[in-house]
Amino acid sequence: NSKLKIFSLNSNQELAEEISEHAGIPLGKSSVTHFSDGEIQINIEESIRGYDVFIVQSTSQPVNENLMELLIMIDAVKRASARTVNVVMPYYGYARQDRKARSREPITAKLVANLLETAGATRVIVLDLHAPQIQGFFDILIDHLVAVPLLSDYFLNESGVDLENVIIVSPDHGGVTRARKMADRLKAPIAIIDKRRPKPNVAEVMNIVGNVEGKTAIIIDDIIDTAGTISIAASALIESGAKEVFACCTHPVLSGPAVQRINDSVIKELIITNSIALPEEKKSPKIKQLSVARLLAETIVRVHEQKSVSTLFD
Amino acid sequence: NSKLKIFSLNSNQELAEEISEHAGIPLGKSSVTHFSDGEIQINIEESIRGYDVFIVQSTSQPVNENLMELLIMIDAVKRASARTVNVVMPYYGYARQDRKARSREPITAKLVANLLETAGATRVIVLDLHAPQIQGFFDILIDHLVAVPLLSDYFLNESGVDLENVIIVSPDHGGVTRARKMADRLKAPIAIIDKRRPKPNVAEVMNIVGNVEGKTAIIIDDIIDTAGTISIAASALIESGAKEVFACCTHPVLSGPAVQRINDSVIKELIITNSIALPEEKKSPKIKQLSVARLLAETIVRVHEQKSVSTLFD
Ligand SMILES: Nc1ncnc2c1ncn2[C@@H]1O[C@H](COP(=O)(O)O)[C@@H](O)[C@H]1O
Ligand SMILES: Nc1ncnc2c1ncn2[C@@H]1O[C@H](COP(=O)(O)O)[C@@H](O)[C@H]1O
Repeated sequence: NSKLKIFSLNSNQELAEEISEHAGIPLGKSSVTHFSDGEIQINIEESIRGYDVFIVQSTSQPVNENLMELLIMIDAVKRASARTVNVVMPYYGYARQDRKARSREPITAKLVANLLETAGATRVIVLDLHAPQIQGFFDILIDHLVAVPLLSDYFLNESGVDLENVIIVSPDHGGVTRARKMADRLKAPIAIIDKRRPKPNVAEVMNIVGNVEGKTAIIIDDIIDTAGTISIAASALIESGAKEVFACCTHPVLSGPAVQRINDSVIKELIITNSIALPEEKKSPKIKQLSVARLLAETIVRVHEQKSVSTLFD
Repeated sequence: NSKLKIFSLNSNQELAEEISEHAGIPLGKSSVTHFSDGEIQINIEESIRGYDVFIVQSTSQPVNENLMELLIMIDAVKRASARTVNVVMPYYGYARQDRKARSREPITAKLVANLLETAGATRVIVLDLHAPQIQGFFDILIDHLVAVPLLSDYFLNESGVDLENVIIVSPDHGGVTRARKMADRLKAPIAIIDKRRPKPNVAEVMNIVGNVEGKTAIIIDDIIDTAGTISIAASALIESGAKEVFACCTHPVLSGPAVQRINDSVIKELIITNSIALPEEKKSPKIKQLSVARLLAETIVRVHEQKSVSTLFD
């Protein structure tokens, strides 16, 4: 692993440490502090001249702070003569602002892509983008990893559910492809929740397409934010005769009332990844976190060694 | 004023309102809110197709939040088919990170310039950049306004100081040009404080170059941040025989202990501009705020009407 360095910023240090262990190289030395007026001050404390540098940062809450940290770090790494500047963004903030849904809206997901490029990133490694089209927002290299295998393996090997009696549920029409992939791995049928959302962060479940009667339902989503959708969906599934409901997602945004809603819901267990760090106060016996560290570490090492990463994607 | 719109973001709404009054046109309707997870949501609530749009935002504290608001607003304005996207940044955050003072440092002032361009700004209007070289960081149009005339006029017309007995003091070597300009207007001599700064946000005054004995000293600086430098400088001036000390600056960053230090210092009065909004808790009988609204409004109107603004700069 010569000429490879991994740096962590502040959003997800635990994950970065795990990645560095799996990759078998210590994290690069750097510090991110603030001047008295709140401006970010970054110091890279070892030479990276000629290195492939990987910067691990999720642009999760506080999103603007984390994004600016990342942009400034990219600038510093670039100016320090790194050979390549690779951004490992397990969670891509602003991904839901990926189109003009109304007049005069920004397309912030595209803006973020442009900002990363402008700062000097030469490659981004992302995980389960809210829309796969966001890949096309980049002119630089992008590797798009998926968490379906990791989440599926949990249900196959650890959950103890009766695999003969499972149905995979997509909480909306946009998530059917993801549900389909999980269903293939679990050799299960799928159902779709046909919902109407009156406004952002407010969810309303309408009806279930598919027969869930007597089944163990596993809802799969990319992001769980306020957990409104998922908890109402779970109730709807039980009302429609499901025996029990599990939920899983890649990105545990879990903002506002989310954890309380999960705890109060009929959901038996919520499986998430550590693409976003789970702060102590959001931990709950109902929430189980799986690690994407090995997946990211393998990707980093393979990218550095110029080996194919496509086998990691499926 | 057909086809001209001015929008305010959150950093400095009072200033934006004053600007709109001076310009004689109401502020454009827009809203900046946050989604549950802290992501910024911007809505422009009226058509701006074909307009010259001016967005007023200082990237003062919270700098990263304010900068992201600005970038997202620029994106929205651009995509709404504005004719030109003009950014009015009375205070340019990160201006002090304008060079690599040590190895592997970012040059965040340049990064910010690139981000503004990438988002879609076609012109920036700034006031007293920490270093005039930052103008060259931009490939888009830039108008660089100065507050020396405004600050000088206060001393000439309102302060009541004996104008025969004034000396203008630069708190460091970098500020001599600015002090010289004020001295010309007040027909006064200048002095320079020869200081050594052991580390950021800590100031140490060394000695005074010039004779301040019996004089009313007026220190002029671009930014007052923690007010360490300025309060020690003021004491040094009194120790060197100055009769009284005034201070003035364009950008009242006033972070951390700044206001307390000003209040506890020998400074008689601190004159600042409203390039950065002064929150209620930072107000003090010693601090007098002058408005740059008229200067900015005139600049906006002249830029829109394609008239020269150079007479405003001196
Ligand atoms: N951070 C956010 N929280 C909640 N809603 C958002 C957020 N960002 C964007 N949106 C909205 O979510 C919608 C896109 O979500 P989706 O239909 O799931 O792709 C758009 O209408 C956006 O305005
Ligand atoms: N926000 C800030 N607060 C305090 N010092 C800063 C800030 N940004 C940059 N600096 C430092 O201030 C120095 C530049 O200030 P100056 O010598 O006055 O141009 C550089 O060494 C920077 O590292």
